[in-house]
Amino acid sequence: MTYCVALKLNAGIVFASDSRTNAGVDQIACFKKMRTFVNPGDRAIVILSSGNLSITQCAINLLEQHGRHADQRNLWNVDSMFDVAQLLGECLRSVREHDGAFLAQNNVDASASFVVGGQIRGERMRLFLVYAAGNFIEAGDETPFFQIGETKYGKPILDRVINPHTAINEAIKCVLVSFDSTMRSNLSVGLPIDLAVYSESAFELDLEQHITHEDPYFSQISKRWSDGLRGVFASLPSPDWLNDTAPDSLPRL
Amino acid sequence: MTYCVALKLNAGIVFASDSRTNAGVDQIACFKKMRTFVNPGDRAIVILSSGNLSITQCAINLLEQHGRHADQRNLWNVDSMFDVAQLLGECLRSVREHDGAFLAQNNVDASASFVVGGQIRGERMRLFLVYAAGNFIEAGDETPFFQIGETKYGKPILDRVINPHTAINEAIKCVLVSFDSTMRSNLSVGLPIDLAVYSESAFELDLEQHITHEDPYFSQISKRWSDGLRGVFASLPSPDWLNDTAPDSLPRL
Repeated sequence: MTYCVALKLNAGIVFASDSRTNAGVDQIACFKKMRTFVNPGDRAIVILSSGNLSITQCAINLLEQHGRHADQRNLWNVDSMFDVAQLLGECLRSVREHDGAFLAQNNVDASASFVVGGQIRGERMRLFLVYAAGNFIEAGDETPFFQIGETKYGKPILDRVINPHTAINEAIKCVLVSFDSTMRSNLSVGLPIDLAVYSESAFELDLEQHITHEDPYFSQISKRWSDGLRGVFASLPSPDWLNDTAPDSLPRL
Repeated sequence: MTYCVALKLNAGIVFASDSRTNAGVDQIACFKKMRTFVNPGDRAIVILSSGNLSITQCAINLLEQHGRHADQRNLWNVDSMFDVAQLLGECLRSVREHDGAFLAQNNVDASASFVVGGQIRGERMRLFLVYAAGNFIEAGDETPFFQIGETKYGKPILDRVINPHTAINEAIKCVLVSFDSTMRSNLSVGLPIDLAVYSESAFELDLEQHITHEDPYFSQISKRWSDGLRGVFASLPSPDWLNDTAPDSLPRL
């Protein structure tokens, strides 16, 4: 499976993706699911992908190939991130139209989705979620983040912490906790994590971090979060509903 | 949707279910998803249900009706919880065979699943998960709990805390945190929670608790867990990957 998340904050956009792909539990491999397209001073675009790997790779290759034809509308010359999301959706539709029926014959799911965000000079930063059908939605202040893939385990901490005013460093910390929770509960999501940070009006990436299992910061976050949760749980009072409750587990109100 | 969980511990079995059912977001109702069958001194059986409400209700009604025919093999006269799980699976198959095609004509999913556990005199406590196809599996020491319905949000805390040696009070506390996490993230899971506790060789239920939004213990658990998580998150160090990090968010290692 996959887990990708992107947070659109006032200060910038934080993107993160895991690297594990699997076709059954006996076929596990490592692929980067983040692609960056930067023309310094003009545009910086990050795409995260989830779903059938051949479909997502083909769609992004198509987007990239179109970018070499300056006479066509492409991701290097359009005026808006809206157009980029639209181009990506069109590439996805095109690949699915080309390959979908053959995958269906083999009972392979050809669905895929993307998160695409960044900024093009002349407009503000924007973040989009491109669905499997090629249609897309944009993040706003009320919903400042998008997740794709295995989204549930990592969502509660984002819901509790993230709002548009969250600082970039807090957001990175939150994203890593979100990945830690997801990786603990779903074996098909795994390290390394690719992390990218775009700051408003930078028109280049501020940070591209590749987080492996040897990363001391991630290990520390993971251990301290786990210990902290256990500590909070232990500090909660026990119920007094059972008469045969041992004295040491009575409510500590 | 639904969230139900049952934990088989050395000390006993803890059962819990939410009460919200929905057919679309504009059709929400409250139904109890826990049924108890107790013949004191002989057997105590608890069934939790998830899935299409008409299917689960019909299957349990059928099980109950068969129980009125003493000449037949039924839940009051079989010798084993294994047989009870089998009877329940047969009732589910029978209802799906009777109604399934008609529901399919209306694009309604007729799937359903159950958790059934308890004890019949002559054997140990046992806990089973009955799948939509009527087949079933039994909990063991390595997997001491079963969840049905919206299982993901509430699973991490169970994974971190529950093992067969967990005390009943700790388990109740953990179950309520698990429900709290689920209800925060999925609107289609809601209070009241029905909670039942069976202790090994009691052959009756020790506790049947109906937890509404007015329950002071649940409110306290919910608030303290939320505050505790925020506290742990705030105490985690920030990364030092960005050069423009403000001094107050530098790592506190």
